[in-house]
Amino acid sequence: MSVIHDMARAARAALPALAGASTAQKIHAITVAAARIRVRSADIIAANVQDMAAARASGLSPALLDRLALDAGRVQAMAQGLDVVAALPDPVGTVIKHWQQPNGLDFTRVRVPLGVIGIIYESRPGVTADAAALCLMAGNACLLRGGSEAALSNAALLACIADGLAAAGLPAAAVQQVPPGDRTLVDDMLNAHGLIDIIIPRGGKGLIAHVQQQARVPVLAHLDGINHVYVDASANAVMAAGIVRNAKMRRTAVCGAMETLLIDAHAAPDLARAAVAALVEAGCALVGDAAAMRIDSRIAPAGDAAFDTEYLDAIASVAVVDGVSGAIAHITRHGSAHTDAIVAENTAAAEAFLAGVDSAIVLWNASTQFADGGEFGFGAEIGIATGRLHARGPVALEELTIYKTLVRGNGQVRS
Amino acid sequence: MSVIHDMARAARAALPALAGASTAQKIHAITVAAARIRVRSADIIAANVQDMAAARASGLSPALLDRLALDAGRVQAMAQGLDVVAALPDPVGTVIKHWQQPNGLDFTRVRVPLGVIGIIYESRPGVTADAAALCLMAGNACLLRGGSEAALSNAALLACIADGLAAAGLPAAAVQQVPPGDRTLVDDMLNAHGLIDIIIPRGGKGLIAHVQQQARVPVLAHLDGINHVYVDASANAVMAAGIVRNAKMRRTAVCGAMETLLIDAHAAPDLARAAVAALVEAGCALVGDAAAMRIDSRIAPAGDAAFDTEYLDAIASVAVVDGVSGAIAHITRHGSAHTDAIVAENTAAAEAFLAGVDSAIVLWNASTQFADGGEFGFGAEIGIATGRLHARGPVALEELTIYKTLVRGNGQVRS
Repeated sequence: MSVIHDMARAARAALPALAGASTAQKIHAITVAAARIRVRSADIIAANVQDMAAARASGLSPALLDRLALDAGRVQAMAQGLDVVAALPDPVGTVIKHWQQPNGLDFTRVRVPLGVIGIIYESRPGVTADAAALCLMAGNACLLRGGSEAALSNAALLACIADGLAAAGLPAAAVQQVPPGDRTLVDDMLNAHGLIDIIIPRGGKGLIAHVQQQARVPVLAHLDGINHVYVDASANAVMAAGIVRNAKMRRTAVCGAMETLLIDAHAAPDLARAAVAALVEAGCALVGDAAAMRIDSRIAPAGDAAFDTEYLDAIASVAVVDGVSGAIAHITRHGSAHTDAIVAENTAAAEAFLAGVDSAIVLWNASTQFADGGEFGFGAEIGIATGRLHARGPVALEELTIYKTLVRGNGQVRS
Repeated sequence: MSVIHDMARAARAALPALAGASTAQKIHAITVAAARIRVRSADIIAANVQDMAAARASGLSPALLDRLALDAGRVQAMAQGLDVVAALPDPVGTVIKHWQQPNGLDFTRVRVPLGVIGIIYESRPGVTADAAALCLMAGNACLLRGGSEAALSNAALLACIADGLAAAGLPAAAVQQVPPGDRTLVDDMLNAHGLIDIIIPRGGKGLIAHVQQQARVPVLAHLDGINHVYVDASANAVMAAGIVRNAKMRRTAVCGAMETLLIDAHAAPDLARAAVAALVEAGCALVGDAAAMRIDSRIAPAGDAAFDTEYLDAIASVAVVDGVSGAIAHITRHGSAHTDAIVAENTAAAEAFLAGVDSAIVLWNASTQFADGGEFGFGAEIGIATGRLHARGPVALEELTIYKTLVRGNGQVRS
């Protein structure tokens, strides 16, 4: 445990300086880091070339190689991403709530940093820069544990962040790279109760499951996105087709992608056919229940697990449901409480859906692919939380803070 | 696991009805429960007499026997407590935040219930009624695991709650009593990941430590309150004496009690002596560092662990520190981030303390004993959270909720 314990203790020792850092100091650190990334673009790419060669030799899959790869455009985009974070409003010290009690006590709830954040992720080096900048802007220290396949790329990026910290007079321990390779260090992070305040895993299902299984430290995790679009009988057919197609096919591998299309049993045949055809014509394979198969002969029979499947691919399940209440019942049973949408012109139907679906994000007449911190106006995000504690949905700067309550009196004692 | 899994599944099945319950329904359930408690006061006390007899026979300590004991006054107070909760504003559905994006999407963040809450507590039957009412008002289902010594008392109380649920047409599974006695059920609760959303332990250090050690479910725990009052050189001596005495001696066993008195090295001798004398004259034993011992000869030498001790008794530690920065440094090193106070007339000193002390509650010129949900104006509380995730300080109705984000559009798709 000692490597992680030593790093976490150093991070904790940095917390007062981070909590007390001015907004200008944090902006300076992040913009200097961005500038260094631009200046050292060739060095970062050279480090990445070494990582890529080793990853290819070790047989990493083409998909993971693509995530690992950096080129001048991706490096510029990272630097740009830091500048975006530096331009976001500083959440630390903002007043959440202010109230008074009859005895004259004056209460102010203000945002403070969460503390020490452990981030465990896989091959994408972009997470390194993003996560460091978001944690720093919210006044947190972070321990970054990236995949060993990205070790040199991450080290090159973290050297730029370290320069930013130094330039701003902030402690180097604010952003630390956990040595890659030794998997016991991940478990040490997950068990560092009292030293690490929260773990944020970013990666595939295997990683998330391992983290949730092992963690003694609280976790802000991102589980499945089994997302639904429900087309109500009152929907406009053109809008329904557009939203359904975008929700599934804009990018099929993102967590906000639609996985199941629900069609109101009371929908006119043209409406139902338009929604299904929009998918088929965009190249999406469909499986469905018997009623769905009657809408369009191109829908194949759904297997038992179809409605519990996150495809993340150009496949979707289709079910016919009995109005809004049928849609809510289906989503309650099969959904993952991530993101669900209704397409409807009937306001009462839409409001019933918004009230009755208990997902992190519930949309009316908009695509599920808006499930993203940037689209929410948060500027950047570190992930989408699907748990029910602390944060639900995009985890951005505010979600990386907690609060304390300041109480101002003039000598009050309790009777 | 099956008993707990079955109970938790029944609780989850009750969630939609609870989330959709009207405020009037919830008020009705709670006020009927309160009325039943009043009507059945004699039966509840008779059940408690049996619990007390068994507890005495098993050698329960006098302090725990006192917590377990019910009389007519305590039963009335419980019913009254339910009426207080029923009068609190319903947090479910309230809007936390509302904003729009340039593409016309309209975002509303609304409060929703947390879900299924597991509460693990010891001998005090009052927790049963309080916890059930608070969870219910916030739209949550709860599994209540009280101590086996209070089994009959708790069952009698829960029968009243069940009547309230039935009268309001709410599912019986909303409030369930976990069978007492079998300790493996507690560990089953702690491991019911995905079935129980959060565990709130209420009890002594042994219980809390066990819960934190074992839990795979997120925990809102209440750890030590090693609370400080710092008397700045600018303090009014009369106010300082009053606050210090109240912070320590009003009730020494509560979590908001002061455990350490910090005195500014620059304080005038009269001020320092007044603060110390206020404690000594109220019957508080004092231990301190060498500088503190020079203030008053009645201060005994402090052992190594004195400044890390939560006495919960009429004993306090005293240290002399170098101004506000010295006080912050001492609190950062020895405190438990629960509740700390400064007594000062100098506004700059006070604001530096409020900003620099990272505790859940930080007070200026008021007693630490105000660390209480009632005193915050929250009406009631289920505990004081000392962690850094989700809630810090009193856990009341709002803290028993989380949010979802509703997004209203008119056909937007993501480019």
